Amino acid sequence: MRTFLRRLVATAAVPMGRSSTTVAAAPPVVLKVGDALRDRRLFTDGEVEAYAGLSGDRNPVHLDDVFARQVGGFEHGRVVHGMLVASLFPALVAAHFPGAVYARQSLKFAAPVYVGKEVLVQVQVLHIRASATKYIVKFGTKCFTNGSENSPAVDGEALTVLPSLRLRDNN
Amino acid sequence: MRTFLRRLVATAAVPMGRSSTTVAAAPPVVLKVGDALRDRRLFTDGEVEAYAGLSGDRNPVHLDDVFARQVGGFEHGRVVHGMLVASLFPALVAAHFPGAVYARQSLKFAAPVYVGKEVLVQVQVLHIRASATKYIVKFGTKCFTNGSENSPAVDGEALTVLPSLRLRDNN
Repeated sequence: MRTFLRRLVATAAVPMGRSSTTVAAAPPVVLKVGDALRDRRLFTDGEVEAYAGLSGDRNPVHLDDVFARQVGGFEHGRVVHGMLVASLFPALVAAHFPGAVYARQSLKFAAPVYVGKEVLVQVQVLHIRASATKYIVKFGTKCFTNGSENSPAVDGEALTVLPSLRLRDNN
Repeated sequence: MRTFLRRLVATAAVPMGRSSTTVAAAPPVVLKVGDALRDRRLFTDGEVEAYAGLSGDRNPVHLDDVFARQVGGFEHGRVVHGMLVASLFPALVAAHFPGAVYARQSLKFAAPVYVGKEVLVQVQVLHIRASATKYIVKFGTKCFTNGSENSPAVDGEALTVLPSLRLRDNN
């Protein structure tokens, strides 16, 4: 299994610059079954409040620590909206494949993601099918919290249509 | 099938006010299999851009009309992020059932939702199971665009845990 840490890919990219040496650029990295893309992220209080305003989802489990504990049963208080956590999957795909289009996503919310706590988001290629002009790629999509590396907080699959299999950061 | 239009429910609620007449308040409306909750919504340019910033999903199909048409194949230009459209399902559930917790969601993105175009969002009860202190409710979740009333743009199911079956606006 090859893995790409998003920031590593960005910093390790061969500088194209203005030089015109004859040194060949690194070959483009082309997505294959088993490859994984990863990123880390946390959502702040302000981001969760902004998202509550945008989505209209003002469920107090996301905005009120006491309510989140007492009614939601979330021991550490406010949790990030599940759909905001899930937004990290298409965000990660699109960062590497601009023009990616989502066809399907399944989501199992197995454990809470708390406001202000970092998560590791991962999409891993399960299947690739080429059509005439696009690629239909199925990813396993997982989001891990600290201390739960073997048991994702959010788990599922995404079916996407990619315009190319070449990773943007390595072109 | 009973249906509740969110705004209608809100405006039709019996005013509780300060009066102490002996007229009985309307009985609480309790969610049953077949019931549907509905709302209408559109996402503006600014909201889609704000969401792109929050989620980190700056896929140009959401931000650039020319790219959306030419690469994404979306004839009317920019489309709303699928996960932002999908956020309307938990938002609608939580508006009626504060403290609702999402366990699962499946999503099929069958047709584009364009920026600035109104959608009708609907969650309809498929199944209810009572546990000791909560209710596990499965909803069919659909989002329709104008002109596609029989074919949802976004379709799927949500498994939720509700603290009560009493609709908030009718308590």
